[in-house]
Amino acid sequence: MKIDGIAYRSVWIDTEDGWSLRVFDQTRLPWATEILRLTTRDEVARAIATMQVRGAPLIGAVAAYGLALALRADSSTEALERDAEILARTRPTAVNLRWAIERMLTRLRNTAPPERVAAAYLEAGLICDEDVAQNEAIGRHGLELIEQAAAGRATPGRTARASRTTRPDRVNVLTHCNAGWIATVDWGTALAPIYMAHDRGLDVHVWVDETRPRNQGAALTAWELGRHGVPHTVIPDNAGGHLMQHGEVDLVIVGTDRVTRSGDVANKIGTYLKALAAADNNVPFWVALPSTTIDWRMRDGLREIEIEQRDPGEVTRMTGRTDDGSITTVQITPDHSEAANPAFDVTPARLVTGLITERGRCDANEAGLASLFPERA
Amino acid sequence: MKIDGIAYRSVWIDTEDGWSLRVFDQTRLPWATEILRLTTRDEVARAIATMQVRGAPLIGAVAAYGLALALRADSSTEALERDAEILARTRPTAVNLRWAIERMLTRLRNTAPPERVAAAYLEAGLICDEDVAQNEAIGRHGLELIEQAAAGRATPGRTARASRTTRPDRVNVLTHCNAGWIATVDWGTALAPIYMAHDRGLDVHVWVDETRPRNQGAALTAWELGRHGVPHTVIPDNAGGHLMQHGEVDLVIVGTDRVTRSGDVANKIGTYLKALAAADNNVPFWVALPSTTIDWRMRDGLREIEIEQRDPGEVTRMTGRTDDGSITTVQITPDHSEAANPAFDVTPARLVTGLITERGRCDANEAGLASLFPERA
Repeated sequence: MKIDGIAYRSVWIDTEDGWSLRVFDQTRLPWATEILRLTTRDEVARAIATMQVRGAPLIGAVAAYGLALALRADSSTEALERDAEILARTRPTAVNLRWAIERMLTRLRNTAPPERVAAAYLEAGLICDEDVAQNEAIGRHGLELIEQAAAGRATPGRTARASRTTRPDRVNVLTHCNAGWIATVDWGTALAPIYMAHDRGLDVHVWVDETRPRNQGAALTAWELGRHGVPHTVIPDNAGGHLMQHGEVDLVIVGTDRVTRSGDVANKIGTYLKALAAADNNVPFWVALPSTTIDWRMRDGLREIEIEQRDPGEVTRMTGRTDDGSITTVQITPDHSEAANPAFDVTPARLVTGLITERGRCDANEAGLASLFPERA
Repeated sequence: MKIDGIAYRSVWIDTEDGWSLRVFDQTRLPWATEILRLTTRDEVARAIATMQVRGAPLIGAVAAYGLALALRADSSTEALERDAEILARTRPTAVNLRWAIERMLTRLRNTAPPERVAAAYLEAGLICDEDVAQNEAIGRHGLELIEQAAAGRATPGRTARASRTTRPDRVNVLTHCNAGWIATVDWGTALAPIYMAHDRGLDVHVWVDETRPRNQGAALTAWELGRHGVPHTVIPDNAGGHLMQHGEVDLVIVGTDRVTRSGDVANKIGTYLKALAAADNNVPFWVALPSTTIDWRMRDGLREIEIEQRDPGEVTRMTGRTDDGSITTVQITPDHSEAANPAFDVTPARLVTGLITERGRCDANEAGLASLFPERA
């Protein structure tokens, strides 16, 4: 999508040297648009672990290129297996990461070592292009939901809600965390339908959950929506339920880091609370994902999906910009108070209105997923 | 309660001059324990509006003293009515504020102007003493719930939950915002049972919701629990549902700014989301309040309770302490991104396990409240 009118992807090969990797440093957004150059396996692993690169689909794509970089140093089979495992372990919850690494291994194990580097770049490039195509398809299938909501708004009486404060003809979408173009290679998952609706002239407005503790909503989603020109309002994570109670949310669209074959959804911590509020207020709750995010081995998301526990310092400290323009980190809790930082939660399938995939929409259950992906069911 | 071993109330008359008001500047906590001296109606109004003084019961007590300060300047009936109205309008959602002002007016309208100042100090002092007594009673009635949870834990099998990470014999209470001793004159409402349990030697641990955007949990609840010595862990507002899904929360206790006669509960934004999660996971959800918080005129909380919309700057900016020790405010959203800041939400009575009042516990409905307060029903 665009930054102030110029189109970007979120990962690309350096055009000058033709081999190093270029990504945005997402820990510097929204303050600075800094582009990192990654040249080794370890640089890629560190960028993923520190969340300079984040977003389930993007992690997969970058890790795939990370394997290409690793092979430049050592293309032996032993190194291939070792480096693949190191890259696959950088984050535990997103399934796309392991999917991308497995795909690379399948391709590269059958390739002679001297040809592996070229094959790895080719395969990683395919992963990126497919991600873009999948997200564009997700955008099309999700766009229909926004169009339906807009049509519903235009029907007098049908959606009249007393305390609505925003424009009556505007479609209000709530999203949590960042599942936008910088979380993928382009378009995003949850935001793809929103970009498509906006670009087609629909009046769509986004409630952006701040998404504590790392503020991916306030820092990343607000940044990319603003730079592309999409109307949006940042809200505390606490506010979504209240807005739904008062008719201010037409639909929720979120991304996901892992969906079980039964439709349970792992996503950024707090997603479950929004799903509960959506169900309590009859607000549709949709989850957008490429099929690479489906974990066909798992049935019970609450019991089976590993939830990453991150540094409590992400809760007790916050980074922002002071009035004099410097980027500063401040402590926001008392000394000696402990903090906990579970990074994801699992929304049970029963709370999910449906899934938006590159092949279309389906119910969040085994039958729904089987109808779209019969070859995997 | 205690700050590092020394007992305090959160509002008192200056012991040297015998008439000015002393309160903690709660916007400076947890960084500094600064005590303000308030000498006029306008200083009191400003302290309430800027949330240097906050917490529904404390606002009522301080506003009552504010009227005494106003009468020192002008004790005429005209001034009395005008100053009372100015103080009553400083915050819109908490009902205790108007209750305290009405009580003062009832007392003072029948008092001759020359005696009004002394009568006002006396009445405000009674309001404070009654608040302390009520909160202590709330503590006793809530303590039983913690004792029951502790007893339940001790029964093998009954509360065994697979992924529990904290100590098996520990009672885990989740709370939102700050309904502790500094939100009242002493003891607190939601925290009164916790202080009482802790002081009696029960192993109670508190999950402290950060409570964005003003961080009353991370800044105030964590501070007062820590200074009194109660084990606690700060969590993002997003995390409570996940903890409940995994059996890490035995009960929720929150305070409230207004309860309708039908049991609907207005409290800090985000409370509703936690109530939904508690209901979804069979975790008891209790609301602690003095009866002064009940608004007997209202039945439908969602439609009738006015929700304060506060400055968006509270969402886009955050204050903390830098590593060099200075208190700094940083911007955490992109330039040009708007923010919304509804300060409260309403939890429907159907999601409330029960109310803890100074007269005991009851169901969150008209019959429940009538059983405890027949004279008002």
